Amino acid sequence: MTEVNKRLQELGVKLPDPPDPLGAYVPAIVSGNLLFVSGQLPLKDGNLIFKGKVGADVTPEEAYQAATVSSINALAVIGKETGDFSKFKRIVKITGYVSSAQGFTAQAGVVNGASDFFFEVFGEAGRHARVAVGVAELPADSPVEIEVIAEVEL
Amino acid sequence: MTEVNKRLQELGVKLPDPPDPLGAYVPAIVSGNLLFVSGQLPLKDGNLIFKGKVGADVTPEEAYQAATVSSINALAVIGKETGDFSKFKRIVKITGYVSSAQGFTAQAGVVNGASDFFFEVFGEAGRHARVAVGVAELPADSPVEIEVIAEVEL
Amino acid sequence: MTEVNKRLQELGVKLPDPPDPLGAYVPAIVSGNLLFVSGQLPLKDGNLIFKGKVGADVTPEEAYQAATVSSINALAVIGKETGDFSKFKRIVKITGYVSSAQGFTAQAGVVNGASDFFFEVFGEAGRHARVAVGVAELPADSPVEIEVIAEVEL
Repeated sequence: MTEVNKRLQELGVKLPDPPDPLGAYVPAIVSGNLLFVSGQLPLKDGNLIFKGKVGADVTPEEAYQAATVSSINALAVIGKETGDFSKFKRIVKITGYVSSAQGFTAQAGVVNGASDFFFEVFGEAGRHARVAVGVAELPADSPVEIEVIAEVEL
Repeated sequence: MTEVNKRLQELGVKLPDPPDPLGAYVPAIVSGNLLFVSGQLPLKDGNLIFKGKVGADVTPEEAYQAATVSSINALAVIGKETGDFSKFKRIVKITGYVSSAQGFTAQAGVVNGASDFFFEVFGEAGRHARVAVGVAELPADSPVEIEVIAEVEL
Repeated sequence: MTEVNKRLQELGVKLPDPPDPLGAYVPAIVSGNLLFVSGQLPLKDGNLIFKGKVGADVTPEEAYQAATVSSINALAVIGKETGDFSKFKRIVKITGYVSSAQGFTAQAGVVNGASDFFFEVFGEAGRHARVAVGVAELPADSPVEIEVIAEVEL
């Protein structure tokens, strides 16, 4: 078992099978040292754990959880692409898209649900550059979508 | 004629001249093995083929077409930057921004207009990681904007 | 003093200390030759120079300025990460997120506030690929957020 899997066990996180893409694309592409993970939604056993806009239908606390679950799905993809993390080096960048009700401007706090998770799992290798924005709508009425770029060994 | 050009001819796709940027930037930059293409709109002969928000002014089927036309423009840029595709390796990632009316959550289907196109043209080399989001507004009232990252030979 | 610092002095631009991240992330990550800068807001001395949606609370001219100030902050981060620009090669891509009032579709003009600035400072090395979109909301009610990818020497 790799260090990462030990750490996930300590945190009580069980990685799911990577969710199926919702369209004609693949979960991830490796190009050189960069692993581009497709946008991940807060799916658990095939269902979104929350639906709707943050600040109206979904609370900031629920959205934080949604960002964490999206990140767990991203991590499942990363695990599969890196031989169970044996070639994983670190998280490089995440972009957090938050489906935002009119006037909701606390996107940074929501996307911390992803950032905190990666830091908990990987420590310094989980620190990343980040973009957080509030969008009008997301696929399947998801409150959050998380995109990850990671670095891998060649 | 390269394989890609043969394939485009079979599909009846004629690549236009790459559209002019709408601002103080360039159509694409190559850095290492990565080719970053600027966001492409569904312009044909200088005009957007549809305008407005998907789910209100523009139907999902029209928006799918708009995503395809945006991708044809991205492909024109890629062709120009890769010596008519001689240095092209594959599509790495696309981000599809869909100008979405309140309550429209079928962004994945719209962005398939780009994903399906790249797979039709390139086969496996057209498979990519993907992000699809619904935004509030797009430049010039475009319903769709497609951003592409491709891999090229050094 | 490097060429870049001379040029900034000519332009009357004084780089601030890079703003603190608004969450559990870092201002930038270098991976290979690519420097990924976290999304930058138009902060000056810790405060946003404008707040609200472009086309309603904020004029396009003010938003152009906001894009420039966001870019100055991005440049401060780049300077810090590249040994005061000694390892800087060029700007690769920028993504401009514009918090847009209903019906505001002049995002390209707003994001020119970033594009023009990088060209003024770096000349050809400042030319970049670009994506400009109109989002529903931005962190802290910022009118603009600018994300930059730069190329650096190894």
